[in-house]
Amino acid sequence: MTEGERETIDFDRVETPVGYVDLGRIRANAERVVAYTSKHGLEWRPHIKTHKSLAVARMQLEAGARGLTVATLREAEVMATLTDDLLLAYPPVGAQKLQRLVTLPERLDLKVALDSDEVLLALGAAAAGAGREIGVLIEQDMGMKRVGLPSSDAVVALARRASETSGVCLRGVMFYPGHIRMSEEEQGGFIEDVSVRMAATLGALGDAGFEPEIVSGGSTPTVWRSHEMKGLTEIRSGSCIFYDREGLDIGVADESDIAYTVLATVVSTAVPGQAVIDAGSKALAKESRGGGGGFGIVLGHTDVTVTGVSEEHGVLDISRSDWRPKIGERVRIVPNHVCVSVNLQDHLLAFEGGRHVLLPLEGRGRGPWRS
Amino acid sequence: MTEGERETIDFDRVETPVGYVDLGRIRANAERVVAYTSKHGLEWRPHIKTHKSLAVARMQLEAGARGLTVATLREAEVMATLTDDLLLAYPPVGAQKLQRLVTLPERLDLKVALDSDEVLLALGAAAAGAGREIGVLIEQDMGMKRVGLPSSDAVVALARRASETSGVCLRGVMFYPGHIRMSEEEQGGFIEDVSVRMAATLGALGDAGFEPEIVSGGSTPTVWRSHEMKGLTEIRSGSCIFYDREGLDIGVADESDIAYTVLATVVSTAVPGQAVIDAGSKALAKESRGGGGGFGIVLGHTDVTVTGVSEEHGVLDISRSDWRPKIGERVRIVPNHVCVSVNLQDHLLAFEGGRHVLLPLEGRGRGPWRS
Repeated sequence: MTEGERETIDFDRVETPVGYVDLGRIRANAERVVAYTSKHGLEWRPHIKTHKSLAVARMQLEAGARGLTVATLREAEVMATLTDDLLLAYPPVGAQKLQRLVTLPERLDLKVALDSDEVLLALGAAAAGAGREIGVLIEQDMGMKRVGLPSSDAVVALARRASETSGVCLRGVMFYPGHIRMSEEEQGGFIEDVSVRMAATLGALGDAGFEPEIVSGGSTPTVWRSHEMKGLTEIRSGSCIFYDREGLDIGVADESDIAYTVLATVVSTAVPGQAVIDAGSKALAKESRGGGGGFGIVLGHTDVTVTGVSEEHGVLDISRSDWRPKIGERVRIVPNHVCVSVNLQDHLLAFEGGRHVLLPLEGRGRGPWRS
Repeated sequence: MTEGERETIDFDRVETPVGYVDLGRIRANAERVVAYTSKHGLEWRPHIKTHKSLAVARMQLEAGARGLTVATLREAEVMATLTDDLLLAYPPVGAQKLQRLVTLPERLDLKVALDSDEVLLALGAAAAGAGREIGVLIEQDMGMKRVGLPSSDAVVALARRASETSGVCLRGVMFYPGHIRMSEEEQGGFIEDVSVRMAATLGALGDAGFEPEIVSGGSTPTVWRSHEMKGLTEIRSGSCIFYDREGLDIGVADESDIAYTVLATVVSTAVPGQAVIDAGSKALAKESRGGGGGFGIVLGHTDVTVTGVSEEHGVLDISRSDWRPKIGERVRIVPNHVCVSVNLQDHLLAFEGGRHVLLPLEGRGRGPWRS
């Protein structure tokens, strides 16, 4: 269904809290990333964990994204209906997940990132058993200390193993610079360090006779400095489709780029110095990020912070603001971390061309996708 | 549908992450609360935000809960199918929510907590317009600084207004001692302070000619000290049906009482000193609570903490443990805050009588309930 075919929603009667997106800004944000990557000879394979929406993914592809990146089998099943180029940037572990993986459409150019013999061999066996070949990216840790092999030698060893394993095809390497979350100005030394480590790994792979077709990196905090990480072929940056408070703090976006907010309603002003809204940890998430404190800011009143959240309550500190919101008044909150807020919504309220529609979040949840 | 009629699930083939509950422990936890409240002349109207499940709510009622407490209209619509005694412990603001509220079944003994003239008058108008009368509890802040009127005088003034408003019927007062989250031993002074403030409010109401039928309080951190808050008629404690890491830290439960964990699978051991599981902030939530740090602990290995979470990754610090989990191994995580973790699940995997079934989470989400 295209947005034009969706039912028009009466904005004044919409119940809050609800995730609220501006489709024009989403398109502009997508086009800006593609303009940047094109200029630097990179490609964009955005991670759709941020939005989990077919409509938003379609806009990313229309803007020029090369393909899509996913983390879960549900996301893969949904997004396989839109693109032939899919990266599962997550190790699939367990018989059920492997079964879902190898029954994705045969037409897909499917790649999987992994960091262990165990996952490689199980994936190869499952793929070979299904009579197909699945691409592999070897994941390296570049300092985040989450997943990924710790050294070039370990990457080369697993690449060799992949090249010898039937059912899989070595396609390249992947990393996620998720430890680089400081302001853009302070990122330089960290980006240089990643470049040095990438050069070492690419050199070692070359010495071993491997020429990675894909070198996949990128994050939203580093999005506009991706070209400084020499050797990259693509970035997966996902949050840059919506942005969030972290993006504002880091400096990769300004308020006019924010494409997602949580529409909320003031429900109490009984405690002096604050107003309480109906968006709490079950709409915004209670995720501390950055140094600003709190869990979000009010769009248009960025001096007002969501200083506390309970499950269905968000507390706005209005003690240093002239703004005096009234019970029943609507506000729009920029959450600290957009991806986890979107994941809490039933659907998104979308604005475009003077009207509002609801967008389903097809990739949300974990069960098999049935369109 | 009763649990006996549900399809048996093959535990070994269940995909992770998934919320996992033990129905025997749930029943035992419910019975323990009812034994406690009965002993002290209190009643239990549990807040079902913790579980959002008809099956679990049924167990609470079977154990002797007087009725149920809800926060959202969805929860109200779902739980109204089970009980005639419902408290909406949240101010309903906006025409749509009021419309849903007044179309709840007429047979309900329905009560709403509120703290403002605005909500009171809108509720009265909506109820009168629908030809019904809805009970009202006046909410007082006892130190949490979230919602609730700040003084006895303000409570009396709003109670008077309620008694003069058609469509509503003054039933009592409500508070939530959510600021009392320290260990049980350290709670005494805070509980005494609440008692003093309650006595003042009840006295002032009495002087004004009001005799509250319901004095509703309670929280899981204070659950076993509720009887020390003199004047209470009921507690709403919700998390005590499952418990969580906070409950362990505070001391209201021990590991054998934990009825909810997130079943997860180890997906990477590439970074030395840690194991990474497939439960991150989209299964556990990334909610800091208490002084222990991290986002959960491993059941059976409580020296192992979830020290970090990304959306689909949970990092277990195994550096101070002898345990060396392998890729593919399953673990059970006790999240910091159970309610927000349950809210992230598609359903619950439930164990009882040697078999596993799936329980739907009917109260999850915000749209109208259709059974």
